[in-house]
Amino acid sequence: MGLKMADDVLGRGLQQIQREIDDTFDGLLPLPDDNSIQLVEAMRYAAIGGGKRVRPLLLATVAEMYGASRAAAVFAGCAIEAIHVYSLIHDDLPCMDDDDMRHGKPTLHKQYDEAIAVLAGDSLHALAFEILGGMQVSTDPYVRAELVHALASASGHKGMAGGQVMDIAAENARGELDLHTITKLQQLKTGALLCAAVEMGAILGKVPEEGRAHLRAYARDIGLAFQIADDLLDEEGDEELAGKALRKDADAGKATFVSLMGIEDARQQAKALSEQAIGHLSSHGKEADLLRALAKFIVERDR
Amino acid sequence: MGLKMADDVLGRGLQQIQREIDDTFDGLLPLPDDNSIQLVEAMRYAAIGGGKRVRPLLLATVAEMYGASRAAAVFAGCAIEAIHVYSLIHDDLPCMDDDDMRHGKPTLHKQYDEAIAVLAGDSLHALAFEILGGMQVSTDPYVRAELVHALASASGHKGMAGGQVMDIAAENARGELDLHTITKLQQLKTGALLCAAVEMGAILGKVPEEGRAHLRAYARDIGLAFQIADDLLDEEGDEELAGKALRKDADAGKATFVSLMGIEDARQQAKALSEQAIGHLSSHGKEADLLRALAKFIVERDR
Repeated sequence: MGLKMADDVLGRGLQQIQREIDDTFDGLLPLPDDNSIQLVEAMRYAAIGGGKRVRPLLLATVAEMYGASRAAAVFAGCAIEAIHVYSLIHDDLPCMDDDDMRHGKPTLHKQYDEAIAVLAGDSLHALAFEILGGMQVSTDPYVRAELVHALASASGHKGMAGGQVMDIAAENARGELDLHTITKLQQLKTGALLCAAVEMGAILGKVPEEGRAHLRAYARDIGLAFQIADDLLDEEGDEELAGKALRKDADAGKATFVSLMGIEDARQQAKALSEQAIGHLSSHGKEADLLRALAKFIVERDR
Repeated sequence: MGLKMADDVLGRGLQQIQREIDDTFDGLLPLPDDNSIQLVEAMRYAAIGGGKRVRPLLLATVAEMYGASRAAAVFAGCAIEAIHVYSLIHDDLPCMDDDDMRHGKPTLHKQYDEAIAVLAGDSLHALAFEILGGMQVSTDPYVRAELVHALASASGHKGMAGGQVMDIAAENARGELDLHTITKLQQLKTGALLCAAVEMGAILGKVPEEGRAHLRAYARDIGLAFQIADDLLDEEGDEELAGKALRKDADAGKATFVSLMGIEDARQQAKALSEQAIGHLSSHGKEADLLRALAKFIVERDR
């Protein structure tokens, strides 16, 4: 699951954070005991192995830029990843996107059953806030409360969950949506959590409110670039590498950035957004190099 | 949805809190806008009307006993009620208990569809932590972070969600469980959140850790009494008053306190636990009268 990138030094820096996230997440996830073997195994099955950890990478990269400890950033990163994993589990359910494969293995409701999938998702959702409410993420309670508020706002009806409802409606509309609506939908469905990752990094780094505008602009641009890249991978990607079924949107006649803009324009747009995101970091020096590398990785990734 | 109780003054005191919870919850729940009409309507459909608000009542009663403001207690009460409502929505799903009626109206997946029910539950789950992470519940960030941690621990795999997995396993075991296992299961499934309600009240009331033992003992006893009373209502209650299907457990051959102890012993046990709970409050004077009244209400309620 390494990050392939042009610059090896930066790539290794991000891979190192990725590894720390994987190790810490492993430690934070519960171990099965007599009462909860199946539930806990299901949580671990969904959470470990295969994820790119993009949201924790963003969070940790921003936090470290402003001098927050790596350990704190990795803990908070595990919380946002727990939210991301729970959302994938619920999105894959038969009543939602009805997907059979995720990260190269059967989806959770295929491996266990639907009830376990709903409850393992709910448990990871709660785990995220248990992590953020606890002392390990920060001894400063103000930071903990702010992190909770940022993550809960981004994942609920005003963010990710609201976007998923719009996405289901889009599926039913069969391609009748315009670019404006798709942009709005994706800003909620994937953008809100990516923005929260950057915001949470800023909270851990104690960046004052008035110093966050350029980070938010960066987050908005890479959020959109990320989704366009996702649509491109869905159209052109390798199903084995992706570890999930591709081209479902096209087959369902669902409007995406690629169906509306065409492959070439979509690719140009993703690249332009990535460059624009990097442009927002112009007031920073070398300390923002990892964040710049992430903006490139997000559009150049192969899965 | 009034509380019927012997003592009218206490009953009115609790009803007043109930009304404030209903009003505040209404204000905290989002209003539909263009992007989220269906999701937000579904959240409101499930959250408003019909609930007894037992968890917020407990929370607010404990918090006020220790001098916390009513407004703060009611906000935190809405957060724990949001968790309770989300858990009912998910428990009612076809892949779980598959219930058609709740609070006298169709369950959420019957009124809308399964996808909306999963996502409205997820959105209420997030809303709970958005409320607790925000300033309205307390200006003291330490209190907010503690509330988050208490609620997330009680609702996740170690508490409510873990108990629901055991409950599904119990259903499959068709009556082969003993009293010890049922007690353990119910301590997780319903007990953990009732205990969290009392704990959150103590956090808001800034009760020092070493002064909470009697409150925890009270919470454990009423948690068990509550569940035995639930099993009795399931066996003997009025389906119209309950607003949901009853006697499903007996029909499914599922072990409950009543099937294992018999009706008469179960009733005695619930009463004894309620009295034992009240006994734990002996160091308190009149300021604990509402909490004593709640312990009685929990076993004497008719729905």
